[in-house]
Amino acid sequence: MTLLIQHGEIVTDGKRFRADVLVEGETIAQIGENLPVPEGATVIDASGKFVFPGFIDPHVHIHLPFMGTFAKDTHATGSQAALIGGTTTFIEMLAPAGSEDLMDGWRTWTGMAEGNSACDYTFHIGVTRWDDRTEATLRELVGQGMRSFKVFLAYRGAFGIDDAALYRVCRLAAEMGVVVTAHCENADLVAELQQKLLAEGKTGPEWHEPSRPESVEAEGTAHFATFVEMTGAHGYVVHLSNARALQAALDARARGVNLDVEVVIPHLTLDRTYAERPGVEGAKYVMSPPLREKGNQPKLWAALERGDIATVATDHCPFDVQQKHMGDGNFTLIPNGIPAIEDRVNVLYTQGVSRGNLSVERFVDAASTRAAQIFGLYPRKGTVSVGSDADLVIYDPAYRGTISAQTSHMNNDYSGYEGWEIDGRPEVVTVRGQVAVQGGEFVGDPSRGQLLRR
Amino acid sequence: MTLLIQHGEIVTDGKRFRADVLVEGETIAQIGENLPVPEGATVIDASGKFVFPGFIDPHVHIHLPFMGTFAKDTHATGSQAALIGGTTTFIEMLAPAGSEDLMDGWRTWTGMAEGNSACDYTFHIGVTRWDDRTEATLRELVGQGMRSFKVFLAYRGAFGIDDAALYRVCRLAAEMGVVVTAHCENADLVAELQQKLLAEGKTGPEWHEPSRPESVEAEGTAHFATFVEMTGAHGYVVHLSNARALQAALDARARGVNLDVEVVIPHLTLDRTYAERPGVEGAKYVMSPPLREKGNQPKLWAALERGDIATVATDHCPFDVQQKHMGDGNFTLIPNGIPAIEDRVNVLYTQGVSRGNLSVERFVDAASTRAAQIFGLYPRKGTVSVGSDADLVIYDPAYRGTISAQTSHMNNDYSGYEGWEIDGRPEVVTVRGQVAVQGGEFVGDPSRGQLLRR
Amino acid sequence: MTLLIQHGEIVTDGKRFRADVLVEGETIAQIGENLPVPEGATVIDASGKFVFPGFIDPHVHIHLPFMGTFAKDTHATGSQAALIGGTTTFIEMLAPAGSEDLMDGWRTWTGMAEGNSACDYTFHIGVTRWDDRTEATLRELVGQGMRSFKVFLAYRGAFGIDDAALYRVCRLAAEMGVVVTAHCENADLVAELQQKLLAEGKTGPEWHEPSRPESVEAEGTAHFATFVEMTGAHGYVVHLSNARALQAALDARARGVNLDVEVVIPHLTLDRTYAERPGVEGAKYVMSPPLREKGNQPKLWAALERGDIATVATDHCPFDVQQKHMGDGNFTLIPNGIPAIEDRVNVLYTQGVSRGNLSVERFVDAASTRAAQIFGLYPRKGTVSVGSDADLVIYDPAYRGTISAQTSHMNNDYSGYEGWEIDGRPEVVTVRGQVAVQGGEFVGDPSRGQLLRR
Amino acid sequence: MTLLIQHGEIVTDGKRFRADVLVEGETIAQIGENLPVPEGATVIDASGKFVFPGFIDPHVHIHLPFMGTFAKDTHATGSQAALIGGTTTFIEMLAPAGSEDLMDGWRTWTGMAEGNSACDYTFHIGVTRWDDRTEATLRELVGQGMRSFKVFLAYRGAFGIDDAALYRVCRLAAEMGVVVTAHCENADLVAELQQKLLAEGKTGPEWHEPSRPESVEAEGTAHFATFVEMTGAHGYVVHLSNARALQAALDARARGVNLDVEVVIPHLTLDRTYAERPGVEGAKYVMSPPLREKGNQPKLWAALERGDIATVATDHCPFDVQQKHMGDGNFTLIPNGIPAIEDRVNVLYTQGVSRGNLSVERFVDAASTRAAQIFGLYPRKGTVSVGSDADLVIYDPAYRGTISAQTSHMNNDYSGYEGWEIDGRPEVVTVRGQVAVQGGEFVGDPSRGQLLRR
Repeated sequence: MTLLIQHGEIVTDGKRFRADVLVEGETIAQIGENLPVPEGATVIDASGKFVFPGFIDPHVHIHLPFMGTFAKDTHATGSQAALIGGTTTFIEMLAPAGSEDLMDGWRTWTGMAEGNSACDYTFHIGVTRWDDRTEATLRELVGQGMRSFKVFLAYRGAFGIDDAALYRVCRLAAEMGVVVTAHCENADLVAELQQKLLAEGKTGPEWHEPSRPESVEAEGTAHFATFVEMTGAHGYVVHLSNARALQAALDARARGVNLDVEVVIPHLTLDRTYAERPGVEGAKYVMSPPLREKGNQPKLWAALERGDIATVATDHCPFDVQQKHMGDGNFTLIPNGIPAIEDRVNVLYTQGVSRGNLSVERFVDAASTRAAQIFGLYPRKGTVSVGSDADLVIYDPAYRGTISAQTSHMNNDYSGYEGWEIDGRPEVVTVRGQVAVQGGEFVGDPSRGQLLRR
Repeated sequence: MTLLIQHGEIVTDGKRFRADVLVEGETIAQIGENLPVPEGATVIDASGKFVFPGFIDPHVHIHLPFMGTFAKDTHATGSQAALIGGTTTFIEMLAPAGSEDLMDGWRTWTGMAEGNSACDYTFHIGVTRWDDRTEATLRELVGQGMRSFKVFLAYRGAFGIDDAALYRVCRLAAEMGVVVTAHCENADLVAELQQKLLAEGKTGPEWHEPSRPESVEAEGTAHFATFVEMTGAHGYVVHLSNARALQAALDARARGVNLDVEVVIPHLTLDRTYAERPGVEGAKYVMSPPLREKGNQPKLWAALERGDIATVATDHCPFDVQQKHMGDGNFTLIPNGIPAIEDRVNVLYTQGVSRGNLSVERFVDAASTRAAQIFGLYPRKGTVSVGSDADLVIYDPAYRGTISAQTSHMNNDYSGYEGWEIDGRPEVVTVRGQVAVQGGEFVGDPSRGQLLRR
Repeated sequence: MTLLIQHGEIVTDGKRFRADVLVEGETIAQIGENLPVPEGATVIDASGKFVFPGFIDPHVHIHLPFMGTFAKDTHATGSQAALIGGTTTFIEMLAPAGSEDLMDGWRTWTGMAEGNSACDYTFHIGVTRWDDRTEATLRELVGQGMRSFKVFLAYRGAFGIDDAALYRVCRLAAEMGVVVTAHCENADLVAELQQKLLAEGKTGPEWHEPSRPESVEAEGTAHFATFVEMTGAHGYVVHLSNARALQAALDARARGVNLDVEVVIPHLTLDRTYAERPGVEGAKYVMSPPLREKGNQPKLWAALERGDIATVATDHCPFDVQQKHMGDGNFTLIPNGIPAIEDRVNVLYTQGVSRGNLSVERFVDAASTRAAQIFGLYPRKGTVSVGSDADLVIYDPAYRGTISAQTSHMNNDYSGYEGWEIDGRPEVVTVRGQVAVQGGEFVGDPSRGQLLRR
Repeated sequence: MTLLIQHGEIVTDGKRFRADVLVEGETIAQIGENLPVPEGATVIDASGKFVFPGFIDPHVHIHLPFMGTFAKDTHATGSQAALIGGTTTFIEMLAPAGSEDLMDGWRTWTGMAEGNSACDYTFHIGVTRWDDRTEATLRELVGQGMRSFKVFLAYRGAFGIDDAALYRVCRLAAEMGVVVTAHCENADLVAELQQKLLAEGKTGPEWHEPSRPESVEAEGTAHFATFVEMTGAHGYVVHLSNARALQAALDARARGVNLDVEVVIPHLTLDRTYAERPGVEGAKYVMSPPLREKGNQPKLWAALERGDIATVATDHCPFDVQQKHMGDGNFTLIPNGIPAIEDRVNVLYTQGVSRGNLSVERFVDAASTRAAQIFGLYPRKGTVSVGSDADLVIYDPAYRGTISAQTSHMNNDYSGYEGWEIDGRPEVVTVRGQVAVQGGEFVGDPSRGQLLRR
């Protein structure tokens, strides 16, 4: 199949230029001005639109047993929502519980994804304990192309690991040249602060943030950075939420530590007042690290624009209103997470590019290219280049719409961005040369997605 | 018994003045110029000498089962050496192993000290695990006047505690208004780095420092500071050894954390090259945190003079040459510690006051007053004031001598300061009004020392 | 004259104890329990009251030509108000304009003070330019006992000096062993930001703070610290107002810089919302550095309690309502300053000791002892000790009152603390053995004050 | 003219791939595998070689009246040496003395360059004072495409500006969207420290570094960052030399300041011991900021690899041995600078890529792409892309050679890298489609270079 995208403005690799893109089969065959129309080619007119590389969400949860329940999306619903939102690749966390065998987990997760995802995907290998068998499995999975680990300093008892295991994970990662991604909140501090607040009768969602204050995350970030430093690993801090934690990360980098930083779209756009709404309205906004004081946001945006924060992800983790009610009367039982996989690109474009907080080049870089580079997908993904996979987003900056759970494709009954206006959306999205989204609707092959080895 | 000390220059509470001191019984009865000589009084001429408050060593180990052996001093030898060196009060760590019952430990330690110490003493209660019984015992011991805890982030398996226990200790301390003292090196990082070095064939004492680098101590300091911050406790970092860790402590203080810092005499005066001497010569200088790069010392001295570092202690912990040989071929088996209880005051006076690094007022403050204030002994100890215990040091700044294991009174066969010259020494030392040292020799009552409740 | 103060609770040098104080002539002759009443002695019963050393305000302006007008107090009004508020010594800035000869300034200031002050006083020598004559005069004035300089990074054109002069001042201070006190706001940044705001039509007092933001003060603090570091001087940052500037100061200390920090009572207790009141109501609260975000205050209190901030002063600088109107329509013309010399001690006691933010020992230390120690007045001033000047404050913690301009003794027609309640006040205040204040009224000798050479 | 470069490995925009490059006229016409050979095309076989975008040196001095003499290169010698070393574009500082009219300077510099440069070039507009005429000229020159300013905090009296001017420059830059590049050493501190050292008889080149210590540069960096913050400008710190200054830059970025950092090749590879060689041998290595302690280098390399340091330049500034002798007996008279324009790329490749300190992708990014992006030359320069200028470097990584002044093409009689081995060199270099270098020799058009407006 041949596809010719004409007259669009391509944004990629820090450049912005008008050219046509010729797709042959699954890859980009040619980029140039006024390319001739091959016989039999499907022609798409991208006049007045951007042509972006397919966006990459490096931090999502689809299959997720967590806090006694399961996140709501399946690979089918999640991947199609992703595509409608412009995301053509996601990296899911393989998240076996501490007691589960890692290789069993691998089979479970890949088994659930295989044949059920409309877009390409890959995995961070969650490491939730350390023993010889874990190490052997990690070596095998890295050999199969899963070149990143995920660890939690938080959630002891569930995913969290201790310092000895953290060292081993970092050391193995350094040896094998893979990235260690980390959730940097000290599990014990959080657990103790939770108990203290509950004991004081502070049970509503507004106490979630005080149970995991900025100091705890800043300390966790510095702690992780020291393990990265001691092992010579490449670290990646997921969902950094506040200026003090950012300072901790940059302090480490100033002394030579190789540490990347990710921000998620909720921390850029929502603040703690959302989670302070009464009852389940607040619970909808409970995630970890929590939504913070608004004063952090300008610093996060500035660091994002500069590239000091590398990537924008979602930590997509949808629980519905009924699940959120599990924490009525006890905020520690609220399933953590805000659904966002469909909205990330549009909200980032609107609040970033359209509002003047982000150049369109860094928008593409942060939401696509840098994730591809850090996680070994580049230049197959993350760029509009000859030879790259033809994952393309034809983006209409003139579109105006409103986010609502009612029109969302994620499998959830509320939206954290209900009523927010968006200043653009993907008009056409392709997955390896095949049109998957047209005019906001999924029109593709629901099982086209492949596991990406890297 | 009445004692009149005439013509000396008193240094206390930031002041320096000439006056006589009249001691009646155990306490100071009067301070003034040209005091009349009471009938029957013993008169000491302190012309040309300083009259200091008895020095306090807030960090010593006497009875110490550690690394499969025992530190060499008894309360008899340690306390008499202390007195000869001008130290009239020491705070020993009650150091039960993780498996030992804390109340049993209390009985063991107080039983060994009682009747065997020539000077007064008290204890930091070592907390090496956390359970209900531990908490109850801590409450009881605080009630008995032991108003400080000691925790180790280092030495997991021996003394070290985990983060959950650390939080509980800090919270209890905050509730009861007692101080938490902490050894701030991350146990797991050290253990892993030790194994890595050994695996690389790096087995000599020169590898001790690289197994616990400055980064690890700085991280531990920041980690402890965060727990202090979260609980509102009063923290005290023992034996801080380097400028990066100092910066971590001051960073915490700049955001309102109540954190004191102690330095020990070896870190002020000895550097890593001592521990890099071959074989057991290097092993003599193995302590933790290790002796560091010399470049740290000017910053430690400056912070000490300013008071940003509050106190100077020893971490006195004597192991003899035979014990040090336990680590031949494996530096991780070298018993940690350098004997110093006898030498602290003279070395600090010489390297500090005499060399221009420390005012004599801050010398007294750092080696006596501040420890008394922080640990609840002031103004009973730590000052030359009416009503205070008559623990006095008549110090001769004109004395010149040389430190040597051969003339030392500590129960050890080597000195870390062998051959170092000293520019002064205690001429007379009193313990609650009784002369205990005269002309460098112990002449007192070997069982005069009392347990100080505070 | 002999004075016996009985039954009070003395707080001094970190100690708190009940004893009588015997004053003979100008000095303290004896301190002890149940002292006999000498014949002819005046006896004061201090039961239920504190006996504090006279408080020292190390940062006041009395004679001050500034911004085209003069501060309102004379040495008579200012010194009597000081005494009523418990302050028995102040350090005024000798503040000649840049064009005025320094020796002429010295004669002017000492001439105005001499015979007109009810309490003792001394001067920081303001250095507002550098040339050979300036240096010679500084050497002469130091020789006469004026052992501190004052420089401004702010107010270029008026008091401000450039970097070359700053270096010379610090170098001379280091050579002569005197302290350099500094107002750390970058003059040019402030001037430019003022112009920018005015050009934008932002003319009210609420724009004063944005014209000298925290960043500017933090930068100034770091800048001054570097000059102190390069010259080996002893620096003292006056009126540090926010947490970022505090961090800059502590960063410098962590690398060995000898830098003290002063806070003034308005920054501890008032915040930017006061200056945001409309019109002249806001103008009353315009001072520099400006009143800041309230979130800074807990960090300032914590650092004060710890001693990381050494002293509490006022920067007393009274302009009346009419003068404040000079800045109607242009905030840059509002004379800077808040009257406080009478209120400092009571507000600090109330908001600090009484509200649990400050121990009574640190209260005395911060408001009296440390200033005496830093500026060479100790132990003549700043302590209750035998031989010290009998500047004593018998403080009644049971007194309850309300601050008001109507009852104030400062020469001003408004109070920044109008209506604030106070939980104590000086009942009796002595100046070198003579009672100057009784029951809130000045009853002393209006010309008793002497110039203190130090 | 048509050029086909076959079989090379292209490195650009973070990608590395084998493809042919077709050049038509001055620009790249096509990139693809196995491109057909157009009739009449010159074919270059790049098998086994890299094809890099032409390198950009964003910090050079060619015409430079400085310290009473002139740098040795002309635009002819400098540009040809640049090309031989792989640099196809340089940004020179237009450096009028403080007294010279800026527009006159513009005519002087462009007049000297025009027709005399073999490669393309552009200018940073040096701003050495501020007045209305300066502002008008800056606006005009920005309008002509000179979109960056250069300021000196150092060299007061020569190039240095004061804080008021610094603010104005930053404000104008923010308004016009241009970059402010800054040399961040405090002029007054340096001047004073120089005088102090000279007065102490410390006159040799080994005292150059102590006259401008790391603290001074760190303070200057923080100072500049604050002006950038206050104005909302985009700042660029030139030749950052040490870890403390790097920390200052990253601290600013953590609070949202838009600040890029440049390192120069000497600071990455040479250390202070070079400048401590006796006499003129040391003088050869005198530049500012000075060569630093070697311990800084690993941190600079790590930050460079991460991209926290954006660019690698030279600060090329050649003075010959005779000129260096001007500072015999007085290090402050040694003309500052080390020749490097010819060696930067080869030394960076050797010490960086070949020694494992730098990926080849970041090597290209740091030495070419990022400079183009920051200074408005991208994607015309700095990438191998269709439509970009055909400035290409065919680099032979198998070449082995040795740097020597004798074989250098710079107009100088010594090399700072004499005898250093290089692990590669440009085999062919093109300037807008024309071959300029072949086998290490200049074979191009000596007047081909154009002034780049951006």
